[in-house]
Amino acid sequence: MVQYMALDRTFSALSDSTRRAILDRLGRGPASISELAAPFGMSLTGLKKHVQILEAARLVTTEKVGRTRRCRLGPDHMEDAVRWIELHRRRWTRRLDELAAYVEQAREGPA
Amino acid sequence: MVQYMALDRTFSALSDSTRRAILDRLGRGPASISELAAPFGMSLTGLKKHVQILEAARLVTTEKVGRTRRCRLGPDHMEDAVRWIELHRRRWTRRLDELAAYVEQAREGPA
Repeated sequence: MVQYMALDRTFSALSDSTRRAILDRLGRGPASISELAAPFGMSLTGLKKHVQILEAARLVTTEKVGRTRRCRLGPDHMEDAVRWIELHRRRWTRRLDELAAYVEQAREGPA
Repeated sequence: MVQYMALDRTFSALSDSTRRAILDRLGRGPASISELAAPFGMSLTGLKKHVQILEAARLVTTEKVGRTRRCRLGPDHMEDAVRWIELHRRRWTRRLDELAAYVEQAREGPA
C-alpha cells in the first residue's frame, strides 16, 4: 500500500511539463531555485511549489547552502516508476507473444 | 506542446493505483466494465470514470459490443511515457558516467 502511494506521487509529479523540464535540467547537474526558475520566466514561489512536489515524490532532493537552496536529482530517482512500467510491459509483451503463437498455430492447424 | 499535454495525461492516468490495476488486468486480455469492476468491489459508475481517464490518455480503447463495453489496452500503450523516461535516464546516466570519469581523472591526476 505504501509502495502504491509512492507510485501515485511519482507519476503525479511527472504529469506536469514544467516538473519534467526541471528534472531534465537537474539531469545536467545541480542548480539553485533561481537558476531553475530563470528559463521558465516563473516566480521563485511558483517554482518552489513544483520542487516541493518533486521532493515529496523523492525525485529531487534539496539542501540549504548559505542563502540558496541547491536542488539535485534524488537517489531513488524514478526507479519505482520504471520498475512498474517494465514489469507491466514484460507481462503485456508475453501476452502478445502468446497471442502470436496461438494465431500461428491456428493458421498452421487445419491446413 | 501537444506531445507535452499527451504526456501530462499519460502520467496523470498512471498516478492512481486503481487505474494501474486496471491496466494490469487488461494486460491479461480484454474485459468488460463489469468484469473490471468485480475485483475492486467498485460501482460500475466509479469504474467507468477510471476507464474514461485511461481512454483519454490512449492507454485503453473501448468498444461497444451488444449491451456491454469491451476494454483493451490501447495501441500506443505507454510508448510516449516510456520514451520520455528512457531519454531522461539515458541523459542522466551519461551525466553520472562523465562524473565518474572526472573523479577517476582527478584521483589519478596530481598523484
